[in-house]
Amino acid sequence: MSANSEPQSALDSVFTEDQTPGVSLSFRVRRRLLSAKTAYQQLEIVETEEFGKLMALDGKVMLTERDERFYHEMLVHPSLLAHPQPQRVLVVGGGDGGTIREVLQHPCIERVIWVEIDEEVVSASREYLPSLNTGVFTDDRVELHVGPGEQIVEQLQNDIDIIIVDSTDPIGPAIPLFELPFFHSCARALRDGGIHSMQCCSPFFYPAHVQSTHANMRQLFASVRLYLGYVPSYPAIWSYCMGSEASLDLSLETLRTRYEERGLRTSYLTPEMYQASAVLPRFVLDLVSG
Amino acid sequence: MSANSEPQSALDSVFTEDQTPGVSLSFRVRRRLLSAKTAYQQLEIVETEEFGKLMALDGKVMLTERDERFYHEMLVHPSLLAHPQPQRVLVVGGGDGGTIREVLQHPCIERVIWVEIDEEVVSASREYLPSLNTGVFTDDRVELHVGPGEQIVEQLQNDIDIIIVDSTDPIGPAIPLFELPFFHSCARALRDGGIHSMQCCSPFFYPAHVQSTHANMRQLFASVRLYLGYVPSYPAIWSYCMGSEASLDLSLETLRTRYEERGLRTSYLTPEMYQASAVLPRFVLDLVSG
Repeated sequence: MSANSEPQSALDSVFTEDQTPGVSLSFRVRRRLLSAKTAYQQLEIVETEEFGKLMALDGKVMLTERDERFYHEMLVHPSLLAHPQPQRVLVVGGGDGGTIREVLQHPCIERVIWVEIDEEVVSASREYLPSLNTGVFTDDRVELHVGPGEQIVEQLQNDIDIIIVDSTDPIGPAIPLFELPFFHSCARALRDGGIHSMQCCSPFFYPAHVQSTHANMRQLFASVRLYLGYVPSYPAIWSYCMGSEASLDLSLETLRTRYEERGLRTSYLTPEMYQASAVLPRFVLDLVSG
Repeated sequence: MSANSEPQSALDSVFTEDQTPGVSLSFRVRRRLLSAKTAYQQLEIVETEEFGKLMALDGKVMLTERDERFYHEMLVHPSLLAHPQPQRVLVVGGGDGGTIREVLQHPCIERVIWVEIDEEVVSASREYLPSLNTGVFTDDRVELHVGPGEQIVEQLQNDIDIIIVDSTDPIGPAIPLFELPFFHSCARALRDGGIHSMQCCSPFFYPAHVQSTHANMRQLFASVRLYLGYVPSYPAIWSYCMGSEASLDLSLETLRTRYEERGLRTSYLTPEMYQASAVLPRFVLDLVSG
């Protein structure tokens, strides 16, 4: 990793992410902590004025300390709550550790296989973003592999209860994670009643991605649920998708019982939001129906 | 109105709104259509690359053509659908006309009293943003008054079925619209079963405003509903609030029937979203409970 401490200047005082060629979101920056070219991507960590530390890959905001729970809770808990007894979990990506931290809240978990392509994201997160990975690196249940997710998944068969893909948007190395061959491998890796879940980018800015990902999921899984959440540092609407051979329709009573029994602590998700987050605005319904 | 056509320059090619001192959202601009100092505020209309035309007051985005329906539908239809037969509607603000356009979708409406403080916003919207106010200025049911909303409301008693406050955020001339004396006047202006509704800013960026507005509403109305929606050009989460002496809890069947019977056409709201939009993330629940 070739880290370099850039000189402070007026231009350094803002971190800007282009959401699309025509829209950008900017955060005022207190100081730049890391800027490094890894084997896979440009990794940056800055301390913002209002959102705590912010990590970006190739200029795209991956997380901020202030709202990362909104994203990680919605990525992780709906599929884990939909499963009566998730024991073996596979996490693809999420090098910051936030997804693993949330998975480990469920006491029934026995093994978490964690595959991250970029080791330097893991080590930088461990150093600069400890609140994301509290307890993650000292937990015996967690088994970290460095490599591309799709290769590890191919080796698994009838082995996993929950797969969670915590990837960047479908650009660069993440493209295969949104495509049919990968979903095939995931379906094969799952045990009976298993659930595949993933972040699915913004249906407002990238409707075609959401549409094709949902269509691919429907080819592989009998029950597919697209659901939405707010993540302020990802402006517009964020979507997540999960699919299973088992039914994903749960009663509120079941969700509440599981949430209580597992002792979950959340700042965004509630059991009531499981259903509500899957009630889609008409323009999103139009993307995924038919 | 002192309009001036500014020269095009590199600096003109972006419209930036500061959401807070530390966060801003920028839109790439094709051309600037209007920049004028009205009696109340700085009014700008620009044509963006991706969001159609954008109108701003005092540097704050009021609407973009691309996502204004997300906002106007969520502001207008929940309260109108919650009423079995809304006939007399009072709209405070919303000089662009989008709220009136949505109100007029309900065929039971007999009279819309529309009070806007800034006549120049109305005339500029009529000229530059005709899709916002199609049919609005030619409809005999609409009665436009120019003046501060709180003064007109004080003159009304037991007269109105639905009040809709389509204001800027609680800064400048809009401050009284978020405070207790105005809510008192609104409660008095409503007929039996009447509903007061309003936009309520972002609970993520302005939690104290949402908390105090909700608390004020609860002092005046037996039934108060805070609900949320996505508006991509207002990043983070947007909230709306409605209150009534009548119950606001509706069955999905009732909502679907009213939505169908009134022939509504929406791009964002569905009857199912009425309930789902009021399922609040935990951090918002924490603001409004207790």
